[in-house]
Amino acid sequence: MASDADDVVDHRPLIVAGSGIAGLSAAIYAGRSNNDPLVFEGDEPGGQLTLTTEVDNYPGFPEGISGPELVQNMKQQAERFGAEIKNGIIERVDGAERPFTVELANGDVYTADAVIAASGASARTLGVPGEDELMGYGLSTCATCDGAFFRDEKILVVGGGDAAMEEASFLTKFASTVYLVHRREEFRAEDYWIDRVMEQVDDGEIEIMRNTELTEIHGSKADGVDHVTLVENPEGHPTDKLDDPDTEEFDFDVGAVFYAIGHTPNTSYLEGTGVDLDDEGYLDTQGGEGGGQTATDVPGIFGAGDVVDHHYQQAATAGGMGVKAALDADDYLEELERSGQAETSGEVATAESD
Amino acid sequence: MASDADDVVDHRPLIVAGSGIAGLSAAIYAGRSNNDPLVFEGDEPGGQLTLTTEVDNYPGFPEGISGPELVQNMKQQAERFGAEIKNGIIERVDGAERPFTVELANGDVYTADAVIAASGASARTLGVPGEDELMGYGLSTCATCDGAFFRDEKILVVGGGDAAMEEASFLTKFASTVYLVHRREEFRAEDYWIDRVMEQVDDGEIEIMRNTELTEIHGSKADGVDHVTLVENPEGHPTDKLDDPDTEEFDFDVGAVFYAIGHTPNTSYLEGTGVDLDDEGYLDTQGGEGGGQTATDVPGIFGAGDVVDHHYQQAATAGGMGVKAALDADDYLEELERSGQAETSGEVATAESD
Repeated sequence: MASDADDVVDHRPLIVAGSGIAGLSAAIYAGRSNNDPLVFEGDEPGGQLTLTTEVDNYPGFPEGISGPELVQNMKQQAERFGAEIKNGIIERVDGAERPFTVELANGDVYTADAVIAASGASARTLGVPGEDELMGYGLSTCATCDGAFFRDEKILVVGGGDAAMEEASFLTKFASTVYLVHRREEFRAEDYWIDRVMEQVDDGEIEIMRNTELTEIHGSKADGVDHVTLVENPEGHPTDKLDDPDTEEFDFDVGAVFYAIGHTPNTSYLEGTGVDLDDEGYLDTQGGEGGGQTATDVPGIFGAGDVVDHHYQQAATAGGMGVKAALDADDYLEELERSGQAETSGEVATAESD
Repeated sequence: MASDADDVVDHRPLIVAGSGIAGLSAAIYAGRSNNDPLVFEGDEPGGQLTLTTEVDNYPGFPEGISGPELVQNMKQQAERFGAEIKNGIIERVDGAERPFTVELANGDVYTADAVIAASGASARTLGVPGEDELMGYGLSTCATCDGAFFRDEKILVVGGGDAAMEEASFLTKFASTVYLVHRREEFRAEDYWIDRVMEQVDDGEIEIMRNTELTEIHGSKADGVDHVTLVENPEGHPTDKLDDPDTEEFDFDVGAVFYAIGHTPNTSYLEGTGVDLDDEGYLDTQGGEGGGQTATDVPGIFGAGDVVDHHYQQAATAGGMGVKAALDADDYLEELERSGQAETSGEVATAESD
C-alpha cells in the first residue's frame, strides 16, 4: 500500500511519466505555466524517437533531424523553462488519496497534485517458440539499435506498417538481403515508405514475402539466429489457415530477425488509480472539443502520446497532445488552487463569526 | 453556381486552404503520401505565426525560433516532399458534386477530391465608434506589424489572454508607456506571460487597467488616434453595467490602440458545402479516438488548426491537427481510389459476361 509520508522525497504540482515527444512537449508548456514539472524518463529515456535515425516529417526541420537530436532539443527547451528531468521508472501511482502518490522502481516516493501519463508504448512480440531465448541474441525490436551487428547477413523483418518499411530500408545498409515478411497482401505504411522500399526491391536489396508469417525462430544464445520457420497462404493470414491445403510451411535461413509489428501501451503503473483503458490497453481520454481533451476519467490524471493514441502515432501528433495535456493540467491545478483558497476563506469566515 | 468544366485550371487529389502551421504540416504529410497537395496561401500567407517575432514554445527549438522562420522551414519541408504552395484566396468550395469545385477570388477554378480547411481565424474587433475609420490609422490588430510606427507614444492594448500579454510586452520597445486594458480582474493568459508583463509593470513600462473597457476611439485618418473613451467598474465587465453608480466613464490620451481580443474562424468559403459549424463559427470535426478525427460531416472535407480549435490554439496543436488531417485525407483518398477500382473491375466483369 501507500508508503508513510516520511518516505516522500518531494512534492510537485505536476509529475510527467515519460520523456518522449509527448512528455517533453508537456514539460515545456508546464514549465512555462510555473507548474514546476518533474519528468521521470522511464525505461526508454527519450522514447521511441531515440531509436529513429532520421525524422523527416516533424514539421519545422526542412532537411530532417535525427531522432536523438530532436529529443535533446526538447529536453533543453523544457529545462530552460524550469522542468526537471530525472532518471526513474514509475512503478505505481496511487490515486485513492490526494495528492497522488508516485512510487518509483528504486523505492523512492513522490507526491503530485496532477500526473501526465506520457509513457508511450513498447514493442510488441509474436509469442512464437524461440522468441524468449533469442531476444537480444539475433532477435531485436530496434533496427537502429542492433542493425550493425548483422553485417552481410540475411535479415528478416516482420511487419507491414511505416516502422517495418523504415526498418527494412535502414537494414539494407548492413544486410546481404533484407526479407520483409508481412501477413497480408497490402501494406499499412505511408506511400512514401512503400515507394522507398519498392525502389530497394528493384535494386535487389529487399525481397518482400507477402501473406507470410513467422512461426518459429531457431538458433541459440551462443550462435544467434540460424533459421526461421515461415508459413504462407495466398489469401493472407496463414497462421489462421494452417489446415488449408494452400498453406505452405517452410524453413528459411536468416542471420537475424527484427520485429516491427506495433506496440503495447505502457499503463501498468496506473492500475491502482482505476483509470479507464480501452480494449487494447490504451488510455481513454475525454477528447471532444474545447478544453480538457486529454483528461482521463480520474481527475488530475491526463494522457498524451502513444499511451493514448492507437492510430496516428506521429511525433507531431504526440507533441500536440503533450501541449494539450500541459494546458489541461494547468487548468486543473489552477482550479484546485482556487478551490483550496475558497476553503481557507471559508475557515476564516467561520472563525470571525465565533 | 459551379463554373463550366473548361474553366478548371487543374485537378488535384487534395487542396489545402491556408498556409499557416496547420496547412503546412498537412502539406508535409500529404506530399509524403503522394497526394500531390496544392496549398492556397489565403490572405495571410504563413498564418498568424508570421506576426509573431519569437516562438519559444514550439517543441524542438530550445532557444526559440522566429515565427516567419518556422513557417518558412515548414514551407520548404512541404515543397521538398512535393507540395505546391500558391498565392490565392479560396472564395468558395462547392460540395454538391464530386470532385469539389474550388473557386478563387481571382476567378480561377480548381477541382479536388478532398479539401483540408486550415484557413485559421482572423482578428476580432469591438465594433465601437471610431473603429472602422481608424483601423490602419492608429488602430491595429498586429503589434509586430505596426508597433514601430508609434515610437514614444502612449499605446493602449485591449485584451487579457496570451496574445494581449505578448503584444503589450512587445510594444514596450516603442511606447512611452503601454496601457493594458482588460474588462475583468483576472487574466486568461499563461503564467509565463503574466509574470513577464508584471515585471514590466514593476519597471514602469506597462500599466494595467483592470475591469475597464474601451467604448470609443477618437482621432482622424490624417492625425491618427488622439484619445479614447474608457469605462471602469470594480466588478468587471463595465459596459454591461453602464447604469451602475460604480461605473465611471473617462477620456484617456493615447497615440495608438492595439486589439488583442481573439479571433473569428475563417469559414465563409465553406458555406456552399453545408459543413457543420459550431455556435461561434468554428468548424465541427469528428474528434474521438482512432482515425478520422479531423473529418467534418461532409465526406472529403477535413479541418485542422484554429479554424477548428477554439481552445488550445498553439503552433504545436495546430501542427498535430494538420498531420492528422493529412493522414485522414489520405485514408479517404485511398478508399475513394479503391471504390473507383471496384467500379472498374465491376465494368470489366460485366463486359466479360457479355
